Amino acid sequence: MAYFENIHKIQFEGQKSKNPLAFKYYNPSEKINGKTMEELLRFSVAYWHTFTADGTDPFGAGTMVRPWDRFSGLDLAKARVEAAFELFEKLDVPYFAFHDVDIAPEGSTLRETNQNLDVIVSMIKDYMKTSKTKLLWNTINAFTNPRYVHGAATTNNADVFAYAAASVKKGLEVGKELGAENYVFWGGREGYETLLNTDLKLEQDNLARFLQLAVDYAKEINFDAQFLIEPKPKEPTKHQYDFDVATSLSFLQNYNLQDHFKFNIEANHATLAGHTFEHELRVARINGMLGSVDANQGDPLIGWDTDEFPTDLYSTTLAMYEILQNGGLGKGGLNFDSKVRRASFEPEDLFHAHIAGMDAFAIGLKVANKLIEDKVLEDVVADRYSSFSDGIGLEIVEGKADLKRLEEYALGLGEIKNKSGRQERLKAVVNQYLLETLSGSL
Amino acid sequence: MAYFENIHKIQFEGQKSKNPLAFKYYNPSEKINGKTMEELLRFSVAYWHTFTADGTDPFGAGTMVRPWDRFSGLDLAKARVEAAFELFEKLDVPYFAFHDVDIAPEGSTLRETNQNLDVIVSMIKDYMKTSKTKLLWNTINAFTNPRYVHGAATTNNADVFAYAAASVKKGLEVGKELGAENYVFWGGREGYETLLNTDLKLEQDNLARFLQLAVDYAKEINFDAQFLIEPKPKEPTKHQYDFDVATSLSFLQNYNLQDHFKFNIEANHATLAGHTFEHELRVARINGMLGSVDANQGDPLIGWDTDEFPTDLYSTTLAMYEILQNGGLGKGGLNFDSKVRRASFEPEDLFHAHIAGMDAFAIGLKVANKLIEDKVLEDVVADRYSSFSDGIGLEIVEGKADLKRLEEYALGLGEIKNKSGRQERLKAVVNQYLLETLSGSL
Amino acid sequence: MAYFENIHKIQFEGQKSKNPLAFKYYNPSEKINGKTMEELLRFSVAYWHTFTADGTDPFGAGTMVRPWDRFSGLDLAKARVEAAFELFEKLDVPYFAFHDVDIAPEGSTLRETNQNLDVIVSMIKDYMKTSKTKLLWNTINAFTNPRYVHGAATTNNADVFAYAAASVKKGLEVGKELGAENYVFWGGREGYETLLNTDLKLEQDNLARFLQLAVDYAKEINFDAQFLIEPKPKEPTKHQYDFDVATSLSFLQNYNLQDHFKFNIEANHATLAGHTFEHELRVARINGMLGSVDANQGDPLIGWDTDEFPTDLYSTTLAMYEILQNGGLGKGGLNFDSKVRRASFEPEDLFHAHIAGMDAFAIGLKVANKLIEDKVLEDVVADRYSSFSDGIGLEIVEGKADLKRLEEYALGLGEIKNKSGRQERLKAVVNQYLLETLSGSL
Amino acid sequence: MAYFENIHKIQFEGQKSKNPLAFKYYNPSEKINGKTMEELLRFSVAYWHTFTADGTDPFGAGTMVRPWDRFSGLDLAKARVEAAFELFEKLDVPYFAFHDVDIAPEGSTLRETNQNLDVIVSMIKDYMKTSKTKLLWNTINAFTNPRYVHGAATTNNADVFAYAAASVKKGLEVGKELGAENYVFWGGREGYETLLNTDLKLEQDNLARFLQLAVDYAKEINFDAQFLIEPKPKEPTKHQYDFDVATSLSFLQNYNLQDHFKFNIEANHATLAGHTFEHELRVARINGMLGSVDANQGDPLIGWDTDEFPTDLYSTTLAMYEILQNGGLGKGGLNFDSKVRRASFEPEDLFHAHIAGMDAFAIGLKVANKLIEDKVLEDVVADRYSSFSDGIGLEIVEGKADLKRLEEYALGLGEIKNKSGRQERLKAVVNQYLLETLSGSL
Repeated sequence: MAYFENIHKIQFEGQKSKNPLAFKYYNPSEKINGKTMEELLRFSVAYWHTFTADGTDPFGAGTMVRPWDRFSGLDLAKARVEAAFELFEKLDVPYFAFHDVDIAPEGSTLRETNQNLDVIVSMIKDYMKTSKTKLLWNTINAFTNPRYVHGAATTNNADVFAYAAASVKKGLEVGKELGAENYVFWGGREGYETLLNTDLKLEQDNLARFLQLAVDYAKEINFDAQFLIEPKPKEPTKHQYDFDVATSLSFLQNYNLQDHFKFNIEANHATLAGHTFEHELRVARINGMLGSVDANQGDPLIGWDTDEFPTDLYSTTLAMYEILQNGGLGKGGLNFDSKVRRASFEPEDLFHAHIAGMDAFAIGLKVANKLIEDKVLEDVVADRYSSFSDGIGLEIVEGKADLKRLEEYALGLGEIKNKSGRQERLKAVVNQYLLETLSGSL
Repeated sequence: MAYFENIHKIQFEGQKSKNPLAFKYYNPSEKINGKTMEELLRFSVAYWHTFTADGTDPFGAGTMVRPWDRFSGLDLAKARVEAAFELFEKLDVPYFAFHDVDIAPEGSTLRETNQNLDVIVSMIKDYMKTSKTKLLWNTINAFTNPRYVHGAATTNNADVFAYAAASVKKGLEVGKELGAENYVFWGGREGYETLLNTDLKLEQDNLARFLQLAVDYAKEINFDAQFLIEPKPKEPTKHQYDFDVATSLSFLQNYNLQDHFKFNIEANHATLAGHTFEHELRVARINGMLGSVDANQGDPLIGWDTDEFPTDLYSTTLAMYEILQNGGLGKGGLNFDSKVRRASFEPEDLFHAHIAGMDAFAIGLKVANKLIEDKVLEDVVADRYSSFSDGIGLEIVEGKADLKRLEEYALGLGEIKNKSGRQERLKAVVNQYLLETLSGSL
Repeated sequence: MAYFENIHKIQFEGQKSKNPLAFKYYNPSEKINGKTMEELLRFSVAYWHTFTADGTDPFGAGTMVRPWDRFSGLDLAKARVEAAFELFEKLDVPYFAFHDVDIAPEGSTLRETNQNLDVIVSMIKDYMKTSKTKLLWNTINAFTNPRYVHGAATTNNADVFAYAAASVKKGLEVGKELGAENYVFWGGREGYETLLNTDLKLEQDNLARFLQLAVDYAKEINFDAQFLIEPKPKEPTKHQYDFDVATSLSFLQNYNLQDHFKFNIEANHATLAGHTFEHELRVARINGMLGSVDANQGDPLIGWDTDEFPTDLYSTTLAMYEILQNGGLGKGGLNFDSKVRRASFEPEDLFHAHIAGMDAFAIGLKVANKLIEDKVLEDVVADRYSSFSDGIGLEIVEGKADLKRLEEYALGLGEIKNKSGRQERLKAVVNQYLLETLSGSL
Repeated sequence: MAYFENIHKIQFEGQKSKNPLAFKYYNPSEKINGKTMEELLRFSVAYWHTFTADGTDPFGAGTMVRPWDRFSGLDLAKARVEAAFELFEKLDVPYFAFHDVDIAPEGSTLRETNQNLDVIVSMIKDYMKTSKTKLLWNTINAFTNPRYVHGAATTNNADVFAYAAASVKKGLEVGKELGAENYVFWGGREGYETLLNTDLKLEQDNLARFLQLAVDYAKEINFDAQFLIEPKPKEPTKHQYDFDVATSLSFLQNYNLQDHFKFNIEANHATLAGHTFEHELRVARINGMLGSVDANQGDPLIGWDTDEFPTDLYSTTLAMYEILQNGGLGKGGLNFDSKVRRASFEPEDLFHAHIAGMDAFAIGLKVANKLIEDKVLEDVVADRYSSFSDGIGLEIVEGKADLKRLEEYALGLGEIKNKSGRQERLKAVVNQYLLETLSGSL
């Protein structure tokens, strides 16, 4: 059976195409520097936004029209699996990602929940035998259920910690069973609402203990997925412990966990923290911690996580620039942690939205690749910092000049000359590359 | 003599050009719908950012390297005029704009200040005889001098009100003398720092009185410039009275001033108020109040007015969309109320920055024009709201249905069907138009 | 039966009391300037947050433990009424407020919905016969149901407009039936998600038509409640048309509706718009448009509507200052549009929260009253603006001085002297009044 | 001679005093837990805001009326020293703090600058012999001079790095000479404007090298001041490397510098980073890194550093709570990195402002001390987290339970019960303590 009857397999038709249900820029098999776009972009569909979410917002009930909504319970879960693999195939995406509760209903006990999971995981495994689509990552949802009202790993209630730990155990087993390439820890409610009632130290210690338990168990069962921390500064809690990449890195260092984790960086979480997407990617990259990406975008005038499908070409270009400079994402991918707007409630919008996002990143890939190929920014940077390649600059970098030596040098200086940073010129160049790369006119 | 010796006249070289000192997209004489780009865009150079400002910021001294800085006093003012017309000619811009204190130094008395103005205004008038560049607008600076510490029109000190009024009188005369097409009122310090010491009502009454005085005097001297209010929500004061377009419109309505003013809308002021640039333009447009534009951009992660040169092509496209739908800007123009970054301190950066901005708006013009030509958004809107063209919708619009009639109708309705808003699809279409318009492939 | 068995009637015990379930500052019968605190504060309980909401947030399921949750359907609605009047009585509040869907379940048709409403309204009316608690205001919820996905009065679907209009008709009838003193229009989804698909002009015209229909019908049925517009800048939509007081005032003026409406001002909506609570109150006040208050507070570091119970004494003091200067709120009141935190899920928290809010406003009332009694700020203001009471200032205010006269005057001025605004001193005085008013030591 | 002729020594007069030039709450010799308020608060005057700054803002010239402004050059610098010690004495503050350029004018060469410094340092040293006021910390200004346009330690210009290093060498010598208890590193322009031209890795490496050079030289000259990093997220640069405490901690850990530094935490920098002041203090405290405080406050609706004098009693209370829990600030203090508003330009305002701030922190100290004395929050916290003191919670904390054990335990659990977090109640208690501590009624 088909849930998206009127949707044919999405084809690449080229940039002039007026067919709304076609890729105009994303051509999976097109090669760039010896790799296909599919290999370079590693797109992933987010199960929760695409198959589970119903469009509810704080002021409104669900709006999403979903053909599988005539089912309920485990039947609904099964229908979603069927719809998922239909969509994966029609979009031709290589990856998907999920939380436990996205794929199977919670039971009234942990045991029943796990049994539900087993049913659906087995079904997914069967589908994966004949599908090209693999599991980018899985995780558990330890924030929706009321038991997690005060957090999971950072709860004040030891029973809740134990329950969450048991769920992670199952999550790791599920990941291994389905060959997940990564396992994600997003700190759903790991944060605080008010310092007035919070033992910040104990909560952070417990979070570290929790992560160490997961590391140990993954090793025990030979689950070799890359573990990923996903920073977010706030929402749902007033303060989330994994505020941003730098904060989370500090946390991992404090507890000697940095060798076991990389970061899953989300564009909208970056902007909520006061950073650009590319800043967070850069900070992770230069620390060797860039693991994977939650591809979406926020609205800079809105103060909550809007999880929009990524369409801003500046953002996709600068993100792909960092990713290419990183030598790619390794086991990671570009997971569309993006939801269609509540007003885009028709099934067809799921395709429009993914096409929009995939085309936007394909464009970003091509523009970023061309910028790198032409050494547009590298040459600027090399020239700007050249003073550290010899003379006093080299002494500084090599640790050979102490303050006395530097004072002696500085006393001998005449007027110091700086050069313009040329920001406006660089922005114009980025515009030119954005407009001209695809038309081949550069 | 030449202040920008190494800069030749900027030419249009087409989009493939790698010459940093050439227009790639802005071709003044290219016609679009029967008008030239120059006529449609009406670019203006902001005297203050380009010739007067020195790069000072709250944490640093001036950095700008300006060839005219070897002069001082009136000689400096004269040198700036020379440099200005050299730059106008090299950039081939049709307009410029200034505050009184940008062009001539303040004297120790109002009389001396006015005399200084007379000298420079006379010089500018001479230059304008042989230059194509005209005065888009002028205004007075009633915020920098310490006398304006508590505001000008909204000061608590009647002497200060009188002084500002006298300065506006001179400003209107200067505008008339130089043929200014508009006269701008930006409420520099017209706002409050704390409500604890503020008589909000009196301050707003006085602001209205002040504007009325200007309206009356302009009529008296037959100065027929369009008067413009420039909204801004905060900075330098905590709360500026002309917060945004809607607030300023309410103010004008309260005091029956709405027929004498339109709005000068600045992109960065819009975003500081929590709006998009296109929102402010749209609100002004549908109220028949869109007068002119201060073309710049802010940084959405920064909470102060950064006045960056506009390079974001989404913003320039959506701005030009509103402007074209408005039938153009009439007497208004696109004034670059934009400053080179403090680190872009070389004279050459002034050219890079203006080229970046002019090219960005030229692209925006072309893409917006193509969107309108193809009725991309109009068709969507016409279809979306079609239910108000007949049946109960027409009754509503024509005022023929009261609540009883509507209840009767509603009671007869079955399930109400809505259609998707298709936001993701529309954003993808905008991307396609952005990328394909210039390559002519659409 | 009792839903709050363990809660006794909350008593005033004075400021030293350590009893968490007692008023420490709010003493309903205490007189201030001849009126009781109850009369001056006119507290109202928000039905939706207190009896209907379950603690759901975008990342979590409901957490609230409510004794009436064992019921469902109309029985649940009835249980909530019982619980409501029990809480009203135990808190001794004079008012409550509701949306239609808070009190009765929506049926599958408008007719059924209205029948459900009739049942509950009748029940509430019975309760009101023996209760002191009156209806401050009612309204309809035209934003939660999926039919309102594109707005209600500003929808693109005429059927939806008609349905919403019919609901308002019922809402007005309900208000009349229950003696509501006000009727509120909060523009739930009256705004837009993206300008790309929006006819801003038609939507605003329709909103005005909608309001006019309500005005007409209220007149027809002799429902003399004060109509209130409740500004909010964003959320749920990206841009809400009733952005803030000034914007909404402009809208009302545009459509000649200003005589039929006042404003219901919410603290958290003010801060989301970039204003202080007291700013919005002041703007409404000086325009004669201050109608009622949604008493809550936001978190200044959070970008969404947190609707916290008001506890910030600076905010309650400055709000009461405006309200007292307004001569009170007339028909309006202080409605706690406030929700207990998701982690404050026990029934007892409803009492802690209301006590916290009521005490906070009682303190604010006393401190503000003392500030006014001692003319602390009035004297400062009178002195600051005294230059407009005679001489050139009086000429300005009386419209006797034109620009020529003011120039003549300004030319005769020597150095202009200003006086300090003394903001730091005033803040210290406010602190002293906050700390010393209640101890009587001032 | 006297610069503040009309100001007498500020005395403690008690909370009922109406004398604006008296302390109402700050009583230096009053003992709390065996220490005087003076010892516990360790107030410090910021030289730059108080004696050097002139009230310039991005839209206005200086407004400050300062009796020493009739001098210039070194004479001005000397007059400021005289005024400073007069103010220190009249305010009876135990500490002050400065940047090099605050106290002495820059010369045209480094040598001349250092000579100027020597003159003034010598004069200050003389004053300190007879004054009680000591140097809390000094630092250098490596951000104002145009040479630092691209940063100091993170510049792209090795000569600039050398110059800044030489200035720090002098700064350390000056600190030692004057007995500074701390030495501060605020990363003035250590950040970036755009990633497009930035080598983030090299800049951070160089920043670490710079700090290590300072550590080494301080050791060499036996300067035993506590070194302090002062986090700030942005301004003047778009992104400052010392974004917040967690980011800076991560940086220090990356370069193995964490044992040589603590943090100087500024309230307004915290809020610009999206944190509360108390959050930053708490994070520093639990990491053993709380060194000193820049006492001020921001405006939560304003997006730039307003550096207001601290008057918010919630903020001072919660700050003092963290400081008392930290066992005090050790060598650190409460430095008023606060400036009078541009409109508070009279010399007298300097006293009003410091009195406001000192009284606000005195109140905070007393309220926080009472909260701790009564174990108001500690008891709440102890009870909330008690489940980690025995049973499965203790196993977790002691590292004895692995995921298998926790799963086994979780499978045996029935419904998990949580308790309310009681946020509203706690906020009411804080209000009660705020109002009642000083009146002694608790």
